[in-house]
Amino acid sequence: MTAYGYFGPAGTFTEMALDAWAPAHGQPRTAFGTVDAALDAVRRGEVDEVMVPIENSVEGGVSATLDALATGSALVVVGEVLVPITFVLAARPGVTLADVRAVGTHSHGWAQVRGWMGTNLPGATYVPTLSTAAAAEGLAPEAEGTAYDAAVCAPVAARNNGLHLLAEDIGDVQGAVTRFVLVARPGSLPAPTGADKTTVVLFQRTDHAGGLLELLEQFAARGINMTRLESRPTKDSMGSYCFSVDCEGHIRDARVAEALMGLKRICADVRFLGSYRRADGQPAEIAPLATDADFASAQAWLEGLRG
Amino acid sequence: MTAYGYFGPAGTFTEMALDAWAPAHGQPRTAFGTVDAALDAVRRGEVDEVMVPIENSVEGGVSATLDALATGSALVVVGEVLVPITFVLAARPGVTLADVRAVGTHSHGWAQVRGWMGTNLPGATYVPTLSTAAAAEGLAPEAEGTAYDAAVCAPVAARNNGLHLLAEDIGDVQGAVTRFVLVARPGSLPAPTGADKTTVVLFQRTDHAGGLLELLEQFAARGINMTRLESRPTKDSMGSYCFSVDCEGHIRDARVAEALMGLKRICADVRFLGSYRRADGQPAEIAPLATDADFASAQAWLEGLRG
Amino acid sequence: MTAYGYFGPAGTFTEMALDAWAPAHGQPRTAFGTVDAALDAVRRGEVDEVMVPIENSVEGGVSATLDALATGSALVVVGEVLVPITFVLAARPGVTLADVRAVGTHSHGWAQVRGWMGTNLPGATYVPTLSTAAAAEGLAPEAEGTAYDAAVCAPVAARNNGLHLLAEDIGDVQGAVTRFVLVARPGSLPAPTGADKTTVVLFQRTDHAGGLLELLEQFAARGINMTRLESRPTKDSMGSYCFSVDCEGHIRDARVAEALMGLKRICADVRFLGSYRRADGQPAEIAPLATDADFASAQAWLEGLRG
Amino acid sequence: MTAYGYFGPAGTFTEMALDAWAPAHGQPRTAFGTVDAALDAVRRGEVDEVMVPIENSVEGGVSATLDALATGSALVVVGEVLVPITFVLAARPGVTLADVRAVGTHSHGWAQVRGWMGTNLPGATYVPTLSTAAAAEGLAPEAEGTAYDAAVCAPVAARNNGLHLLAEDIGDVQGAVTRFVLVARPGSLPAPTGADKTTVVLFQRTDHAGGLLELLEQFAARGINMTRLESRPTKDSMGSYCFSVDCEGHIRDARVAEALMGLKRICADVRFLGSYRRADGQPAEIAPLATDADFASAQAWLEGLRG
Repeated sequence: MTAYGYFGPAGTFTEMALDAWAPAHGQPRTAFGTVDAALDAVRRGEVDEVMVPIENSVEGGVSATLDALATGSALVVVGEVLVPITFVLAARPGVTLADVRAVGTHSHGWAQVRGWMGTNLPGATYVPTLSTAAAAEGLAPEAEGTAYDAAVCAPVAARNNGLHLLAEDIGDVQGAVTRFVLVARPGSLPAPTGADKTTVVLFQRTDHAGGLLELLEQFAARGINMTRLESRPTKDSMGSYCFSVDCEGHIRDARVAEALMGLKRICADVRFLGSYRRADGQPAEIAPLATDADFASAQAWLEGLRG
Repeated sequence: MTAYGYFGPAGTFTEMALDAWAPAHGQPRTAFGTVDAALDAVRRGEVDEVMVPIENSVEGGVSATLDALATGSALVVVGEVLVPITFVLAARPGVTLADVRAVGTHSHGWAQVRGWMGTNLPGATYVPTLSTAAAAEGLAPEAEGTAYDAAVCAPVAARNNGLHLLAEDIGDVQGAVTRFVLVARPGSLPAPTGADKTTVVLFQRTDHAGGLLELLEQFAARGINMTRLESRPTKDSMGSYCFSVDCEGHIRDARVAEALMGLKRICADVRFLGSYRRADGQPAEIAPLATDADFASAQAWLEGLRG
Repeated sequence: MTAYGYFGPAGTFTEMALDAWAPAHGQPRTAFGTVDAALDAVRRGEVDEVMVPIENSVEGGVSATLDALATGSALVVVGEVLVPITFVLAARPGVTLADVRAVGTHSHGWAQVRGWMGTNLPGATYVPTLSTAAAAEGLAPEAEGTAYDAAVCAPVAARNNGLHLLAEDIGDVQGAVTRFVLVARPGSLPAPTGADKTTVVLFQRTDHAGGLLELLEQFAARGINMTRLESRPTKDSMGSYCFSVDCEGHIRDARVAEALMGLKRICADVRFLGSYRRADGQPAEIAPLATDADFASAQAWLEGLRG
Repeated sequence: MTAYGYFGPAGTFTEMALDAWAPAHGQPRTAFGTVDAALDAVRRGEVDEVMVPIENSVEGGVSATLDALATGSALVVVGEVLVPITFVLAARPGVTLADVRAVGTHSHGWAQVRGWMGTNLPGATYVPTLSTAAAAEGLAPEAEGTAYDAAVCAPVAARNNGLHLLAEDIGDVQGAVTRFVLVARPGSLPAPTGADKTTVVLFQRTDHAGGLLELLEQFAARGINMTRLESRPTKDSMGSYCFSVDCEGHIRDARVAEALMGLKRICADVRFLGSYRRADGQPAEIAPLATDADFASAQAWLEGLRG
């Protein structure tokens, strides 16, 4: 039995991500109020694996997750889930669109429906809530003193709280997707599948010339394709960054292993955040001459020369 | 007379940034409820220049600002201000720390005081507000129905609303700073000062091999130091990014001009977001052989050869 | 009228190169005993243009030419000719292969027929001569005291001296070609044809980190294809080199002009040795986004931004 | 006992290089008439090690040696010797400078004294010989029918043949040096000394984009300093080159081993020509973070992560 956790409450897109993770079916699950709380629960061993959002195709990286993974005791990503994001505008039965004076939702949700709101509810004020699900809960029959008439939330949250839908699919960007990661304590490295990603955080050495270009060349010299690069402040001072990077391939692939060792040498620190199967199942594009067989053959040649 | 705007309400750190901008003294100013609204007011000509936050040394880039500058009709940065961020916990007179059950503030503010809260108010619930100043306003004498007892805000906001301070300087990271930019319509390029930065957004060409490394080499080939790189989703699909970049130097500097032209050639698009004096006044580190005189001398040599 | 010179004597492959240069037909020509003498004659104005060998597909660069062009007062290449190299073994009438005890030729010629000699004349000794044509002249009817019985030379030289052929096409490498260049005083830059090459000599700056990689990146950043790179000692000390480089394109092409200016900035010196039509007429491979139109459009964009 | 060979005859600078190689003292030595013959004698096991010239600080690489090492059955460099080059003008007793009508020497020798000859013997003709020592032998008491009156050679060759000196130190470039290498069959890799060089020949893959820049980045990504790069034609066709490269460090150094494996992967072929102590004893400049300890520590880290 595996104890799962997720960034809650129930009814958020994060719970939908956990629903989409087959091994979690029928297993116990716990909702946590913040990403930090979820990750800390894994660190302390309260749960085994937690699902948290890491990136949205519209809003970008989820800072809280990126920063919590980059600091504190080590955690690793062991799985990835993509969830299409569809927002509804939900209200208590009897409320019509014309009645809506204020709308509640999480600030990230609000950011994704501002266009729709400007067109359809230009006079409505925005009330921030702790999550999109919390916005829907605020309109549940038993809730009192709620400062808004309608909630922007996932369809499931509207259903869970007995709301009816004033509008569906109101996101400004069609096809929006959020990427979630399943995080565990180090120790269990998923086996390579041929369609894997590896995530690392790179901390630059300040006393060493070169910079980002030099880091990227460590990937390039081994023919590795980078799929995401995000800078995050190290919190030391303005202008001091670390880089959160996803690349194609698995730490058990020779090219990835050699690139990681190269980065480890030239960085102040490299934090390994896991090798795991890509949610989209797209096989890694291995540059010509960078397969495991190419590496093995070069190694055999070298050993022959060294005698 | 210049009409100024800022991301309000009054009493936020953004207004403090505008206070710190000498040319704005004695000029009219308008607060806008969102970064988008402030930038649109400039675009429409309602105001001439607006102050908005762009980056925090702890929380990173301000997505709303980065994205609003990267899209829509063109705007340019004409100035930069750094404001030290100091949070206080403020309440109505008579309220003590022991009385606090719920704390209101903006989610970015909350992110920066979570450590202090965990230690000093472990049982308090968090209530999100539209801004740190709005949290303080919610406790003003005339405010009603507020769902929290204390606000995390700037000292000025506490003062403006007649609150007293339960605790000062409660940020988890000492020395936190937010960087603000003054944004105007294109047309007025600040003169080079020797201590300038240039900001651009780079959109990669998907049908052209190379990637980020190739973009960075355009800076490197002209000896230009990059001071910030942030990837932002282009909103088209997961994994499609643009890059928001600050580099040292001014578009009127030969090395910056040539790098921008190189980027313009190889990118799908380059959005110029201005050249402006650095708030810290630190002169650009010009690589050896990359001064304007070096460029002029190479140009004269070339023209001699071409006859 | 143009006065031509060439690295003689008559009957060498160099004269064949001059024969292949259409504008030289019917014009006066002078043979010079060394490459240096030929180039100095141009410098002094005795002749207008001289043909000299610069590279052989088997033996590599012609050091005397490379070094003479890299030093002294400026000269430029204004044309290029490729000549297939076919060696014959020639002797006085009546001499048979079995009679040959010693073979005369230039050391570069000898290097290209050593395999044939080892097989067919294993006992013959080698006698160096000043040129392959001089080897043939040594067997002319009027020549005396010649220390060899047969000459390795071009067919034309055998004919000129009344020799008969003991063997034809005896080069060890089939398809050997020598590249010749026509050299003039600066001032007359051939017009771009779309199938041009540019030749430069790059002298590295010793007090500036980076090295060869940094020089090559100046070409790469402008999408320019390099077709030849040769290091030559600068004669200062062991391990001090300059680089003789051919690249595709013409100094009047925007990408070449910008790359040359970049090199001029970061090198101790750049010696421009000309832009001229390729002998093989192969059009330059222009990288995507590196055409003159791409450069012009980026320049117009920049000027718009600079106001 | 080790059987030595060298590019002869006796009295050349190559024999002086062998004299300077301490382990060769008191051992048998054989002179070979060409570099090819010397290297073939090692290949066939006739001798164990041969000394051949590879590079001159004035004239550049010795093509015959570079090409013979790059092809045929494998050979490796096991040592390096630097010899200062000092030329004398020598003649039979009784001959004065005013008597000299023709001068004999090897073409490489002639190339290095042309300036002196132009000034001091402007009317003298040049007669090529097989080596500088052969030029001196042509003036020995027993020699007959020699076509020149004076020889340009090493002082030792003048002494060996009973000649007197018309002029000393007549080289145009002061401080000229030739680098010689001691070549053996593979099998005996000299131990690392901390002041080593490694020599390889790199053959580019024609069906794989990238080119020389990509090869050089394999060295750069491991912080390795290149000390020599020479292109040589592969003899296939004009414009097809291989690269002969010396870099600092020993194949037993982790950084060199990894760079060689990287090159082996991306090149059509890599020919290893040995790791050996530098003649100048100058310790390798190891880039920061590229020591064996740095590589070992990165490897240990990786293995920990792989579990």
